Amino acid sequence: MPNTFGKLFRITTWGESHGGGVGVVIDGCPPNLPLSVEEIQAELDRRRPGQSDITTPRKEADKVVILSGLYEGKTTGTPLSMMVQNKDQRPEAYEEMKAKYRPSHADYTYQTKYGIRNPEGGGRSSARETIGRVAAGAIAKKILRLAGKVEVTAYVSRIHDIEMPEIRTAPSLEMIEATAVRCPHPETADKMIERIKAVRSEGDSVGGLIECRIGNVPIGLGAPVFDRLEADLGKAMLSLPATKGFEIGSGFGGTLLKGSEHNDLFEVRDGSIRTKTNRSGGVQGGISNGEEIYFRVAFKPTATILQAQETVDKAGNETELIGRGRHDPCVVPRAVPIVESMAALVLVDHWMRQEAQNRCFSFEE
Amino acid sequence: MPNTFGKLFRITTWGESHGGGVGVVIDGCPPNLPLSVEEIQAELDRRRPGQSDITTPRKEADKVVILSGLYEGKTTGTPLSMMVQNKDQRPEAYEEMKAKYRPSHADYTYQTKYGIRNPEGGGRSSARETIGRVAAGAIAKKILRLAGKVEVTAYVSRIHDIEMPEIRTAPSLEMIEATAVRCPHPETADKMIERIKAVRSEGDSVGGLIECRIGNVPIGLGAPVFDRLEADLGKAMLSLPATKGFEIGSGFGGTLLKGSEHNDLFEVRDGSIRTKTNRSGGVQGGISNGEEIYFRVAFKPTATILQAQETVDKAGNETELIGRGRHDPCVVPRAVPIVESMAALVLVDHWMRQEAQNRCFSFEE
Amino acid sequence: MPNTFGKLFRITTWGESHGGGVGVVIDGCPPNLPLSVEEIQAELDRRRPGQSDITTPRKEADKVVILSGLYEGKTTGTPLSMMVQNKDQRPEAYEEMKAKYRPSHADYTYQTKYGIRNPEGGGRSSARETIGRVAAGAIAKKILRLAGKVEVTAYVSRIHDIEMPEIRTAPSLEMIEATAVRCPHPETADKMIERIKAVRSEGDSVGGLIECRIGNVPIGLGAPVFDRLEADLGKAMLSLPATKGFEIGSGFGGTLLKGSEHNDLFEVRDGSIRTKTNRSGGVQGGISNGEEIYFRVAFKPTATILQAQETVDKAGNETELIGRGRHDPCVVPRAVPIVESMAALVLVDHWMRQEAQNRCFSFEE
Amino acid sequence: MPNTFGKLFRITTWGESHGGGVGVVIDGCPPNLPLSVEEIQAELDRRRPGQSDITTPRKEADKVVILSGLYEGKTTGTPLSMMVQNKDQRPEAYEEMKAKYRPSHADYTYQTKYGIRNPEGGGRSSARETIGRVAAGAIAKKILRLAGKVEVTAYVSRIHDIEMPEIRTAPSLEMIEATAVRCPHPETADKMIERIKAVRSEGDSVGGLIECRIGNVPIGLGAPVFDRLEADLGKAMLSLPATKGFEIGSGFGGTLLKGSEHNDLFEVRDGSIRTKTNRSGGVQGGISNGEEIYFRVAFKPTATILQAQETVDKAGNETELIGRGRHDPCVVPRAVPIVESMAALVLVDHWMRQEAQNRCFSFEE
Repeated sequence: MPNTFGKLFRITTWGESHGGGVGVVIDGCPPNLPLSVEEIQAELDRRRPGQSDITTPRKEADKVVILSGLYEGKTTGTPLSMMVQNKDQRPEAYEEMKAKYRPSHADYTYQTKYGIRNPEGGGRSSARETIGRVAAGAIAKKILRLAGKVEVTAYVSRIHDIEMPEIRTAPSLEMIEATAVRCPHPETADKMIERIKAVRSEGDSVGGLIECRIGNVPIGLGAPVFDRLEADLGKAMLSLPATKGFEIGSGFGGTLLKGSEHNDLFEVRDGSIRTKTNRSGGVQGGISNGEEIYFRVAFKPTATILQAQETVDKAGNETELIGRGRHDPCVVPRAVPIVESMAALVLVDHWMRQEAQNRCFSFEE
Repeated sequence: MPNTFGKLFRITTWGESHGGGVGVVIDGCPPNLPLSVEEIQAELDRRRPGQSDITTPRKEADKVVILSGLYEGKTTGTPLSMMVQNKDQRPEAYEEMKAKYRPSHADYTYQTKYGIRNPEGGGRSSARETIGRVAAGAIAKKILRLAGKVEVTAYVSRIHDIEMPEIRTAPSLEMIEATAVRCPHPETADKMIERIKAVRSEGDSVGGLIECRIGNVPIGLGAPVFDRLEADLGKAMLSLPATKGFEIGSGFGGTLLKGSEHNDLFEVRDGSIRTKTNRSGGVQGGISNGEEIYFRVAFKPTATILQAQETVDKAGNETELIGRGRHDPCVVPRAVPIVESMAALVLVDHWMRQEAQNRCFSFEE
Repeated sequence: MPNTFGKLFRITTWGESHGGGVGVVIDGCPPNLPLSVEEIQAELDRRRPGQSDITTPRKEADKVVILSGLYEGKTTGTPLSMMVQNKDQRPEAYEEMKAKYRPSHADYTYQTKYGIRNPEGGGRSSARETIGRVAAGAIAKKILRLAGKVEVTAYVSRIHDIEMPEIRTAPSLEMIEATAVRCPHPETADKMIERIKAVRSEGDSVGGLIECRIGNVPIGLGAPVFDRLEADLGKAMLSLPATKGFEIGSGFGGTLLKGSEHNDLFEVRDGSIRTKTNRSGGVQGGISNGEEIYFRVAFKPTATILQAQETVDKAGNETELIGRGRHDPCVVPRAVPIVESMAALVLVDHWMRQEAQNRCFSFEE
Repeated sequence: MPNTFGKLFRITTWGESHGGGVGVVIDGCPPNLPLSVEEIQAELDRRRPGQSDITTPRKEADKVVILSGLYEGKTTGTPLSMMVQNKDQRPEAYEEMKAKYRPSHADYTYQTKYGIRNPEGGGRSSARETIGRVAAGAIAKKILRLAGKVEVTAYVSRIHDIEMPEIRTAPSLEMIEATAVRCPHPETADKMIERIKAVRSEGDSVGGLIECRIGNVPIGLGAPVFDRLEADLGKAMLSLPATKGFEIGSGFGGTLLKGSEHNDLFEVRDGSIRTKTNRSGGVQGGISNGEEIYFRVAFKPTATILQAQETVDKAGNETELIGRGRHDPCVVPRAVPIVESMAALVLVDHWMRQEAQNRCFSFEE
């Protein structure tokens, strides 16, 4: 159950960073969706380590295969099983990690919770787990696009203390992908890249913020009271490794306004009921109101650093651990497609739920 | 399904602000828990409108009854059904709301999603819905206390731009309840109360922050990968009316630190493995590590204000709406027991899940 | 969770035979369904004890109230909470049952599972629990009728060894309700009633079979592989007190045929693809094929009898228990509306699931 | 969701008879279970086609690999992903099936439900789907055995009209596996094998009954009211291809007894509370009472026969279909390990649920 996400469009991820591979099973995918393995690979390539000179130099090809659920290029409504084999395994690199708990990693908590853990590459807590999310998210994004031109766009808005100027509309994918750091503001992107290279040279790491904007959202997605759209988006984002915060619309800053300043007044625009402002972030009473959904996610600095750190070993003795080898000084740029994927999964799921409850039957006595 | 929360300790809330009442059914409550209706009433009284001179003057007695699941003062393991009858109904007060969408409320989205809504007092989107959460949360808090002295403590840390000094340990319940605003720092509390009264006199409203600290948490709660403890806590908080943000541990501010500054180094303290700092907020890899869990929740200013606001009516015409009547200029103080309740529900649920998977069987071949 | 049934049209029942009452919360009910309390009461009256001279003489008015989810005579899409208060309580009648385990009842297993139980009237294992199912089922049946003229018809086909002649089409509700035993074949009904009266005079009890037929079922309901329509119908029926068996279509008898005798050949009839025979019982590969669904449920003889029986008490001593008081010599006639209710709940749920996965999106690239 | 079974020990199966393979992901497996791939293979070999001269001559090696969730020979508590690659594919053999609906198969209902289907080898409705169930069931059976010496034993008790004499205790695995038909009564087994060969020579098929007995069951498994143990066992069995009926304990035959004949009287035996008889089949009030659980499952004759049958094609024209090729005249013997697997999955799941609700906390005020 903890490895499953969604209620109707339901994904189950599996796999550790070492062992046979990582993968995902999608249950509930609508049939007759045209789908090719290349479309999924394209998204995985955005997540892949080694894609640029600011990520880890680990080379992971991450070639995905679709094992089931597809027939003559279309989904059949049966489970889609997708898998990426593990490669480039160097178990010897993990000898020290078997015995010593890495600070701010999951080593200690996994060991205590389960009484056992796969220490190689972080095992299940490895970021490789997100491969399954991105593969599933690629399909969710395609469904949204085909079904209603819904576009999910994420980008890096801050790295460490370097922040891009505020924008009001979603940037194009081209602008985002133009730089290795996935910040659509070129000057800021340059500074971010510089900062990442600087901390890497120190064997240190940085975090940052990802902003996500979703346009053309149908009105009515989200289900009061516990499954508010922002609650499910928040859960989706906080389920990602290294996230520490989530805010939607006006967010934390909105608490500094008075009600008279914060409320989104309604108006009629182009024949539709719209809000003049969008401090709600596209969601009111837990339900999408047709305005752009936008939210921000905080990623802490990568826990793995190439410096000596005090820690404790499995036997309970204080010791020291020095990070070695290939290391990602900043995971935020690679997290962009993951944020998009999780957002798309939430939206597809709620769209199906809306259809089931509110469009299935029409009653005339 | 959207009105149900939790997987093993599972609550389903029902009811609108008008009609027969509001209530909750708890499925999965452990048996043999000593329980009295007075314990639940005490928590509901903390949530109740009209409890002080800074809340709405609406008087709601909110007397709870336990309809099932209790036998001779103990829970039986069967569903606990609890209910509060609705009183003080003045349907005529809602005539205008039937036709005009209140800005930043759920009127428009409910109407569009369902094609129908109960406009009286906000119907299901009314804050009265949280009565069921608090009644269930009272039981969850008692379970945590009896089973492991786990204490869940929430308090108001900011109202509008008035913030209390940072603290490092949970304040006592007495200090929190000492002021109507539930801020444990008396001087700040005075200023907050003053501010709330000032905005009320303007017919305006303010929001703020609630901080929550949970002590004595067992190690091992939280279930990677989607049901991380912070993901479920985040969802719980973002499912509350008026919330716009959630952060745990170092939160958004933590993104300004480098990895070498942010990591929580391990040490041996009093014979146990502990972290020297707690930027993780008590959760690593999605699993509690035994340190204090702490998080913050952002509440926007109350949408209901006693000022004229532009809006649109059901027929699609632009119009104006003037809020009238009894009005809560700041819901944050009353939200304190609700935050505690939701946090306790998450913890009890994950405790049961931990027990099921990791304590149920022991294998010896 | 164990007190919840359904995935999208989801009911949660609560309550014991003694205490505040019994009830049900429906989550996921489609909005805009015209609904009156009288429609629900009518179904409950079919389930009620004391309705005829072959049931228990206990008089239970079982007046239902709708506490939420209805506005101006229509459902709103929010939880429907319904409740029946308990009356006619005579706790003294249960003194002996507190200490002695009734044979073939749930006393011993509840006590051992939970370490506590409400012994009054069987507590949660009382047949009064099914009130919530029938109240929810009344709504499910109405949805089916309005949405697609789907008719769910159950009737008693055997009591003890008295069996009605085989029929091929659903009898009318009038014929079923014409006799107290709810068998649509009048001569057989007379014999059944006679038998029930005879065993009652001996302080004994009998069981029997209920047959259920569902007409006008849309093609495509049921979800391979675990949620086959027959699997969910079977679970629904076997969740009813006193049931010991379930068979669909040709059932156990079908195992005596060869494949060439059992297969339902396809033909074109009135322009539609139909099967010539219906040994499948309306379900193929777990999915409805548009033919009539029919199944049978076996109910054991009522466990409560007015004879001395050997048993054991809570202290673990062998003893004797003599049933006393008001007693239902055969529950099968009263179970007819319960069977219909559970079948309707399964169908509505699968209809919504079919809509969500297979009708929500249409893809054109 | 429809491809997932269980609430805490949760399996998701995927795969069609053609394409990359078939597999299963187990979420919620307890950690530290010693496990080897050979143990799982041994159970799969019992399910495999071509294992004897009364099954289909199709040779499927069905070699399973464990892709994740295992570390140094023990489960880690993370998802176990297992997979069998597809082989022996002859798509040309399915040309006719693409256009013509096979009688009493899932072709027509799948096509109508999804608007698309994989016609090769039945696609998702193929019996190959049960490979994942058996792989997961092998683990569930091992858990039961190690945790409490719980033994799940299924066997063929009837083929067509050839029935073995009634037995009262579970036969040994050796006796069951001694004959290709998995009937522990050698003389009956011989007749069954003869009958299967006879119908095969006619191009026809037969069905039969499987009986299952579970010994050493802990008291308290099963969760009223909807998740009664018999309801979940019934659903598990009726989710298997070709099943048409399920009965537990006295089953359909029990309806011919009076209450005084049917009730299981309690006694004290060897210091424990036991029932003198076991017409309840080990379950009372939906909860295991410590007696042997026993139930029977009806399997219809295989739908695939090598005879000409009338049918309809996709274009809606009446036509004829002649089954060709390799064909299994009776699936019942190969279904034995599948029945055991599903039963074991239900028990492990309920054991974990029992632990979570009723053993997690102990309360002392």
